Amino acid sequence: MLTDQHILPVVRAALTEDAPWGDVTSENLIPASAVATARLVARERGVFSGGDVFAAAMTLTSEAISVTVFLTDGEEFERGAILASVTGPARAVLQAERVALNFVQRMSGIATLTALYVAEVADTRARIVDTRKTTPGLRQFERHAVRSGGGNNHRFSLSDAVMAKDNHLAVLTAGGRNITEALIEVRERLSHTTHLEVEVDRIDQIESVLAAGIDTIMLDNFSLARLREGVAIVAGRAIVEASGSVNLETVGDIARTGVDVISVGALTHSVRSLDLGLDIELDTA
Amino acid sequence: MLTDQHILPVVRAALTEDAPWGDVTSENLIPASAVATARLVARERGVFSGGDVFAAAMTLTSEAISVTVFLTDGEEFERGAILASVTGPARAVLQAERVALNFVQRMSGIATLTALYVAEVADTRARIVDTRKTTPGLRQFERHAVRSGGGNNHRFSLSDAVMAKDNHLAVLTAGGRNITEALIEVRERLSHTTHLEVEVDRIDQIESVLAAGIDTIMLDNFSLARLREGVAIVAGRAIVEASGSVNLETVGDIARTGVDVISVGALTHSVRSLDLGLDIELDTA
Amino acid sequence: MLTDQHILPVVRAALTEDAPWGDVTSENLIPASAVATARLVARERGVFSGGDVFAAAMTLTSEAISVTVFLTDGEEFERGAILASVTGPARAVLQAERVALNFVQRMSGIATLTALYVAEVADTRARIVDTRKTTPGLRQFERHAVRSGGGNNHRFSLSDAVMAKDNHLAVLTAGGRNITEALIEVRERLSHTTHLEVEVDRIDQIESVLAAGIDTIMLDNFSLARLREGVAIVAGRAIVEASGSVNLETVGDIARTGVDVISVGALTHSVRSLDLGLDIELDTA
Amino acid sequence: MLTDQHILPVVRAALTEDAPWGDVTSENLIPASAVATARLVARERGVFSGGDVFAAAMTLTSEAISVTVFLTDGEEFERGAILASVTGPARAVLQAERVALNFVQRMSGIATLTALYVAEVADTRARIVDTRKTTPGLRQFERHAVRSGGGNNHRFSLSDAVMAKDNHLAVLTAGGRNITEALIEVRERLSHTTHLEVEVDRIDQIESVLAAGIDTIMLDNFSLARLREGVAIVAGRAIVEASGSVNLETVGDIARTGVDVISVGALTHSVRSLDLGLDIELDTA
Amino acid sequence: MLTDQHILPVVRAALTEDAPWGDVTSENLIPASAVATARLVARERGVFSGGDVFAAAMTLTSEAISVTVFLTDGEEFERGAILASVTGPARAVLQAERVALNFVQRMSGIATLTALYVAEVADTRARIVDTRKTTPGLRQFERHAVRSGGGNNHRFSLSDAVMAKDNHLAVLTAGGRNITEALIEVRERLSHTTHLEVEVDRIDQIESVLAAGIDTIMLDNFSLARLREGVAIVAGRAIVEASGSVNLETVGDIARTGVDVISVGALTHSVRSLDLGLDIELDTA
Amino acid sequence: MLTDQHILPVVRAALTEDAPWGDVTSENLIPASAVATARLVARERGVFSGGDVFAAAMTLTSEAISVTVFLTDGEEFERGAILASVTGPARAVLQAERVALNFVQRMSGIATLTALYVAEVADTRARIVDTRKTTPGLRQFERHAVRSGGGNNHRFSLSDAVMAKDNHLAVLTAGGRNITEALIEVRERLSHTTHLEVEVDRIDQIESVLAAGIDTIMLDNFSLARLREGVAIVAGRAIVEASGSVNLETVGDIARTGVDVISVGALTHSVRSLDLGLDIELDTA
Repeated sequence: MLTDQHILPVVRAALTEDAPWGDVTSENLIPASAVATARLVARERGVFSGGDVFAAAMTLTSEAISVTVFLTDGEEFERGAILASVTGPARAVLQAERVALNFVQRMSGIATLTALYVAEVADTRARIVDTRKTTPGLRQFERHAVRSGGGNNHRFSLSDAVMAKDNHLAVLTAGGRNITEALIEVRERLSHTTHLEVEVDRIDQIESVLAAGIDTIMLDNFSLARLREGVAIVAGRAIVEASGSVNLETVGDIARTGVDVISVGALTHSVRSLDLGLDIELDTA
Repeated sequence: MLTDQHILPVVRAALTEDAPWGDVTSENLIPASAVATARLVARERGVFSGGDVFAAAMTLTSEAISVTVFLTDGEEFERGAILASVTGPARAVLQAERVALNFVQRMSGIATLTALYVAEVADTRARIVDTRKTTPGLRQFERHAVRSGGGNNHRFSLSDAVMAKDNHLAVLTAGGRNITEALIEVRERLSHTTHLEVEVDRIDQIESVLAAGIDTIMLDNFSLARLREGVAIVAGRAIVEASGSVNLETVGDIARTGVDVISVGALTHSVRSLDLGLDIELDTA
Repeated sequence: MLTDQHILPVVRAALTEDAPWGDVTSENLIPASAVATARLVARERGVFSGGDVFAAAMTLTSEAISVTVFLTDGEEFERGAILASVTGPARAVLQAERVALNFVQRMSGIATLTALYVAEVADTRARIVDTRKTTPGLRQFERHAVRSGGGNNHRFSLSDAVMAKDNHLAVLTAGGRNITEALIEVRERLSHTTHLEVEVDRIDQIESVLAAGIDTIMLDNFSLARLREGVAIVAGRAIVEASGSVNLETVGDIARTGVDVISVGALTHSVRSLDLGLDIELDTA
Repeated sequence: MLTDQHILPVVRAALTEDAPWGDVTSENLIPASAVATARLVARERGVFSGGDVFAAAMTLTSEAISVTVFLTDGEEFERGAILASVTGPARAVLQAERVALNFVQRMSGIATLTALYVAEVADTRARIVDTRKTTPGLRQFERHAVRSGGGNNHRFSLSDAVMAKDNHLAVLTAGGRNITEALIEVRERLSHTTHLEVEVDRIDQIESVLAAGIDTIMLDNFSLARLREGVAIVAGRAIVEASGSVNLETVGDIARTGVDVISVGALTHSVRSLDLGLDIELDTA
Repeated sequence: MLTDQHILPVVRAALTEDAPWGDVTSENLIPASAVATARLVARERGVFSGGDVFAAAMTLTSEAISVTVFLTDGEEFERGAILASVTGPARAVLQAERVALNFVQRMSGIATLTALYVAEVADTRARIVDTRKTTPGLRQFERHAVRSGGGNNHRFSLSDAVMAKDNHLAVLTAGGRNITEALIEVRERLSHTTHLEVEVDRIDQIESVLAAGIDTIMLDNFSLARLREGVAIVAGRAIVEASGSVNLETVGDIARTGVDVISVGALTHSVRSLDLGLDIELDTA
Repeated sequence: MLTDQHILPVVRAALTEDAPWGDVTSENLIPASAVATARLVARERGVFSGGDVFAAAMTLTSEAISVTVFLTDGEEFERGAILASVTGPARAVLQAERVALNFVQRMSGIATLTALYVAEVADTRARIVDTRKTTPGLRQFERHAVRSGGGNNHRFSLSDAVMAKDNHLAVLTAGGRNITEALIEVRERLSHTTHLEVEVDRIDQIESVLAAGIDTIMLDNFSLARLREGVAIVAGRAIVEASGSVNLETVGDIARTGVDVISVGALTHSVRSLDLGLDIELDTA
């Protein structure tokens, strides 16, 4: 969940970045008494995410701003929809506008893209999950946006789950050591609550890895045929994750191989901001 | 310029975000004595940006890592090019990998896109500039990436230049007030070093705005014909900026109207990470 | 503008500096239930600045303190005038007293001094501006105080405007390079919103510098006669700033040479705190 | 003592304040390879303070700058004396110049003023001490400067010593309570290491206050005759501090009344920066 | 006094430590609308401390939580007593529970232990004080807890009082220097408000140390007989502190030797959390 | 792993807490040139933990201090053993002493206690793990100390694993809902890497909870007989954790029931600092 604990410091830093010593335009052109009413309008259709963040950008700029967000994160909207309304001192609303939009446009962009992936796998057992390819400093926000789009999250960070990749396996088996034994020994050292996921590149690695009692096996860059074969071999003894060459064209077929999890870096590593705008009316009377 | 003053705190925060209490995988699977050598490889062609940031992600993870970056920010490279090399403790290199890539992929993505825009206006007087539609927390990095791609920067923030838009002009002229006088009065209140830019929507606004002695006039969403007309009217009395409906197809024609500055939100509001990878070899001997 | 964004962290740090682990005097000598009413009284005449800062020092110490500031920043007052009133828990009022006074005394001292300079140039076109000779950590506060006194601000920092001084010009023209061309090339690299000011020491530098299309020319340590000559040469093609040997005796004559801007380091580099006091009455009933 | 623990964060913040996103002048006008050598020169005589702070402003801007400070804090110097030398990248030296000077000029200004007060009381038992009327955020620096000038420090903050003033005494004796008993009870609650100082306005308060076994008695705004009388009554049973109406004309006579401590708010509440300059030579070869 | 200034940042950091990106249990198992009512119950008897800290852990987690603390810090309670009640969103109450308990259990543990020591010296002139053997980061909290238990505090830190131990004395008297003169010279350099305490190991050191006019003499690891002898020699000329081998069995006898202060490291260096629990009832209707 | 990323900020804060404006004793009694050599000596036997933290307290106080730690964390030592040696400026060593000891004494105290528990279960399959009953702000340090003593860690925080307790189960099954279905639905919402642990109070809850495919089942406050029965029912389908009434007398019998994990709050909620001391020799020659 995205809570104030996460939202406030990031939004506050963004506001300071955008106005380190005030908004010289508003301060010099807009009377302190002017009032603005504004509407957040969708200039294209999509899935909403970031309502609380949008509101925080406004209210952290001025406690005198009030914001009503009309959609819950995760709701779909059509072009032209009014997503939120804002009222408050015109100087503050104008100052907050760009930062508020920067957040909600990116988050809604991620949610909208995620929803497209989720729709492609709708009739399968597969879940769409994000990766660690997030924007530095915004992981909480982007993971939330993925959930808004109907996706799930992978591990949050390097600290909370083990993901053993080819390099790690090469080290574990250096000197001809047995991979099963090596992984069992790793498990001994881990907290019993730490998830153990292992990535394999070949079908013949699966049995020896499963024998160590791991939690998830990732089949990396497997063809559809090999994915199907892998799922059959695992046979429910671990969660199966597919990774690599996932895009909107391929994801449906990948899901239909029977895998449990499909991780998609593109959800966050290449974000298109959704086209949302703020229609503002000023009252200086 | 992107200096350590800006790089270090942001990269440090990103590393903490990605490993709040260490990398449980490396710590439990890789011997402390293992050494990694790695190469940053281009999986597609592009323009490089973020060499210092990539290096910082490595060396902030461990002072024992040494990094050599082979390209200067702004250099072009082909697919397959080796952009940098890294040597150091394997645990640390593996821990830093994703964060280092997240930065350099995004920055090089921005530089590469900017260079495409710059190429389109190469034979004109126009400069390509960014906007405030940057990723919250990464403005310094993204502005640097724009410069790496041959672009220029617009104002850094709300604090360092005035940009009077339609809403501001409406307030200034409320009650039938003369816009020229109103802008002259604004100028009186500003520091003499503060740039004064005014956005207009119509040709007939130009003269009265120029009469106030402003620095830049922005012609917002003007057709090509109107842009040409506007440039002729201004006649060198102010810098002319074009904005709105700018993309790789339109930017060349816009530039050929004779404007001085073209601002492009897409440079930073919708970033595709460039495909760069880290090829790692471990030595546990 | 001085907003809460700037005021609160600085005042909070000052309060912590002055009471890192509480006020042992108030805590041990004053009952928790005692109430104080206090008045901020002028013990000499002056120009007020820092009302919000004074109030913040009180309310950050205790939310139960209420403050009414009777003057707007920039207003003049006579000796004996009551500038503000304070009511709240006696412990907190006594704890906040010194910090609140330290701020408002310094800021009003700067405003009062600035007003003296401004009065001397009242009948001229010249504006009085501050410099970067401010107290480390308090630049926002001191620039605000200068404005309270009727002055204007120079560039905020090294980041937001170029000021080319003798050392810079020497570098630009090393090897006999043409100064006009060198400055034009600099301008190319700058954001179009960045102000370009150049300092000259001699009359004969003016033309070649102006030819580059700079924004402001600073005539450094020019005699009155030379200032007059310089103003005539510039003839409105750039803003003219005078600097050096400016004090209350000389500033009027300097202004009457026709310069646009006079920068005065003394506004902030040597501050006399204005004599303001807090008259406190305690009620322990 | 002023250690790196105190110096570094304050100087770092000051550098950021003065160049939040770099020095656009140096970056655009000075080649990265240019080297500067500079000398800190006294343009008037004084007492030195802030050598480490001056050096930190340089080296925090660039580790490639080397600084040699020729004087120890507290040493006197004549006009024209060379106080320190600096060598390093020209961009960095120029960027650091103003902040480095802002610190050392203020600190040396305080030290020089303090030394004047100390000289006036040279042949007496009195020590000159500072007050809490320091610049917010710079207390450590200003207390150090006072010591550089031969003065001593009063309590650091509200947390480390009790100072009971008229308001406190009024509360303690409300309802006709005996002041001696009240103070004894206060002492019971204090840490045995907390200094207990009491301010009195009248001679007849002295005995009852001393009877409580306090550490220091402050005679506030006493005439010279009354001070002498007070010193005689106290007769060594407590430290005697004089306060109020202290200036360079009066301080000698006050000291000769036999008091132990004279607190002088003017040491820090009204600082004149000493005239120190940086003579820079650039080498771009 | 323990104020919000100290409580809030420490509690906020503790909450972040315990839930860096939320409470996955509450978020996924408890409806957002569920309400919790809870009672803080004593599972053993003791002395209460940390009521404000307990409340802050709750309200910082959610402003919608309301807390009523029934006891004042320092009050005794029996097993089974209800110490506080809490009402608010169930998710937030469950998230805050452990941190809130961690604080109040430790602080009440310290208060309860301190009260045992204080009871042992009830009929003597001695006060029980803490030491600098506190938990890193929690000194303010633990000193407060000691006061809750009826103890007093020693110096807060290395900054606010001098404590000269054997090593320091050895340095002061190196080369046969007279200890009295050396200490007098030290006193000259100190602020007059800085307490000067000297630790001695032998009876024969007492006179020469006292002759310097120190404030407190600490008799370190003296036998009961020697303590009695020491107290007689000092004869009220300084505060006498006993230290070393203090436990609940010995403290009464030590106090009865007539010393003024007994410092007890065990109050904070070895803390047993008191057994307090939170009985929670959820209402999801 | 405890890395510099975690150690440095906490130790730095502790040093500031203990010397906010320097060590007045060292600064005034010890010459700047004096050198100290010191040895960390065990005054009782134990298991070492915190070597890096001890060293950091020294070197963060002064870079001129060098520290050699003779033991690896986790090593046992006898009374009288020399654990580390320190050399450096005497002022700095004396200033750092208490903070360095506070850390290493507590951490070694935890490691030593943990080792006692681990020894009791040596011949069983059970691992000893910590809980979230850690000292606020020191969780990383205390978890490390537990590992030094041969224990394992439970989940790090509320963010990285689900622990469903009685309250949560009550909510899940409100309205007569089936617990198995409810838990399966929870699992759907969780990241696939999030560990799902469920606490039960009664034997008859086990089957329905296991049916949901949970990772760990905690048997809370079960008698030995019931634990044995529970282990038999689970039969390897989940990890079995025992909790409640665990102490050094009971832990062996609990382990012999066949449980996999025993969580022990006492490892960290009630810490006795181990008796380690610093023997210092000063050289002022």
